[in-house]
Amino acid sequence: MKTFQAYLEMVNQAIASIAYPERPLHLYEPIAYHMSLGGKRIRPVLTLMACEAMGGDAEKALDAAVGLEMFHNFTLLHDDVMDNADVRRGQLTVHRRWNDNTAILSGDTMLTIATQFIARSRDLRLMDLFNKTAIEIYEGQQWDMDYEQRSDVTDEEYINMIRLKTSVLLGCALKTGALIAGADEADADLLYDAGVNMGLAFQLRDDVLDVWGDPATFGKEIGGDIMQGKKTYLLINAMRLAQGDDADELRHWLNDPYATRVNKVAGVTALYERLGVRQLAEDAIARYNDLAVAAFNQVNMADADRQAFVQLANRLAGRNY
Amino acid sequence: MKTFQAYLEMVNQAIASIAYPERPLHLYEPIAYHMSLGGKRIRPVLTLMACEAMGGDAEKALDAAVGLEMFHNFTLLHDDVMDNADVRRGQLTVHRRWNDNTAILSGDTMLTIATQFIARSRDLRLMDLFNKTAIEIYEGQQWDMDYEQRSDVTDEEYINMIRLKTSVLLGCALKTGALIAGADEADADLLYDAGVNMGLAFQLRDDVLDVWGDPATFGKEIGGDIMQGKKTYLLINAMRLAQGDDADELRHWLNDPYATRVNKVAGVTALYERLGVRQLAEDAIARYNDLAVAAFNQVNMADADRQAFVQLANRLAGRNY
Repeated sequence: MKTFQAYLEMVNQAIASIAYPERPLHLYEPIAYHMSLGGKRIRPVLTLMACEAMGGDAEKALDAAVGLEMFHNFTLLHDDVMDNADVRRGQLTVHRRWNDNTAILSGDTMLTIATQFIARSRDLRLMDLFNKTAIEIYEGQQWDMDYEQRSDVTDEEYINMIRLKTSVLLGCALKTGALIAGADEADADLLYDAGVNMGLAFQLRDDVLDVWGDPATFGKEIGGDIMQGKKTYLLINAMRLAQGDDADELRHWLNDPYATRVNKVAGVTALYERLGVRQLAEDAIARYNDLAVAAFNQVNMADADRQAFVQLANRLAGRNY
Repeated sequence: MKTFQAYLEMVNQAIASIAYPERPLHLYEPIAYHMSLGGKRIRPVLTLMACEAMGGDAEKALDAAVGLEMFHNFTLLHDDVMDNADVRRGQLTVHRRWNDNTAILSGDTMLTIATQFIARSRDLRLMDLFNKTAIEIYEGQQWDMDYEQRSDVTDEEYINMIRLKTSVLLGCALKTGALIAGADEADADLLYDAGVNMGLAFQLRDDVLDVWGDPATFGKEIGGDIMQGKKTYLLINAMRLAQGDDADELRHWLNDPYATRVNKVAGVTALYERLGVRQLAEDAIARYNDLAVAAFNQVNMADADRQAFVQLANRLAGRNY
């Protein structure tokens, strides 16, 4: 297996070499713009890694890898419209640089382009996995929006939401690479499970970094979730655990429209620490990371490849960026 | 071949029996709502007709037929957001009954469900045709939006726009049915051409009906395109042909924000008649209908089936509803 960096370069080169039609300009320019913003490219790299770990040639998985990254970027384009987000990876979002209609239609186009990339494998199993995963991701996004309107979301509901919204695509990316390599169904399914658990740890780490991350490396302003009152794993558990004065204080921070950002973020962060929800999140991250590692350990592959997956899982679960 | 009505009932029954997941309710309820609004169901019926005319069993084409209708409805859902339309088939549009975010996300879900229905054929040729057609439709929608900002759109550009936005899906519907039946490539392509030309006549008839249709059967208020200043075949040709006082009058109607609906529609309609653009549109409709009939005539099929297609083409080209 090559290094993460080597696969990343393959992916970035493939994305940079996509030949979009020149016209209509307003349809394709936003797609090229958004795809050029970069990102971690974790999903397509996972596809290439899984393909080579299962004895395949990464070149053969490159179309599907690009398709999954295109799909992921389509969801970001539409999510940015739905969340009315201004900035993505330090640049204006498509709906802000152009307009909502452009983001909707260019996003639709990206979904079909993604499907075309998946179809290039000429393997309907990949198409079925891709479509099933896409539906799960839309369901996750819908739950996420629904939960914003509710104050009684449980841990379990939250974990299921992020499983759908974020994690299944990591599982899909790994299984896709495995299927292209001709891996047997059992190994492909173990890689899928590893990806899902890796994705859960990854998303929970994101929740933690939003509060305790290093502003220099996190890429977003610290406390964004707190300011939006976003129902993260931390807030859900804080709402469940807070009693008496703590409960009053939490309600105060969530409902006071005049609180300054600095005070609100500091106040909620202090409450999180007092209530022990930071530790709860760290425990959950460790639990899901362990499940991911256990799944990787059951896959029939070379030890060096297994180590590469485990290192990546640990990095995503513990990343400080 | 069965009657249009018999195929329509097959399609409506298949659509009514789609088992959407119960939750998340806000994702699937709008889809079921929109799919229940009805419509002419021309595309799926064309798929079933083509399948049986080419010797296949319509039952085998039903999944693909439903997929194409689901896709068509997805484009309507997103178009209604982009056009900020309130009413569709006499009912509130999804984005008005729920909200824009619901229409975006439920629409995305419909696109993937449509792709799943197409994939059920287990025939990647159908998937490729579907994806190519989808991309063309997005391009057509983008040109349509671009043309709203331009005053120098040509006949040819307009025809190409409606070919992409509307007609290719009719061609795709016919070819899909033919491929499922195992028709040879030449017949499948002739049916595709027939569908595209039928679609052009159909859309041009829509432009004409918007001005001269019978309010009792048209389903929409007469003069909607005129009120929106929509660059239809009629307006584009009127702008090209109007000279002197006619040109001044046309500019006046297009730019006067205080004109009443009654006066504006009557004024522009009179200008269209004086400039002969109604006749130009009728000539174009006849031309495309003739091309559709000529293509049907070249397909190797039973005469009774050919007659059914020709009658349908004539009906779509001349319809007064």
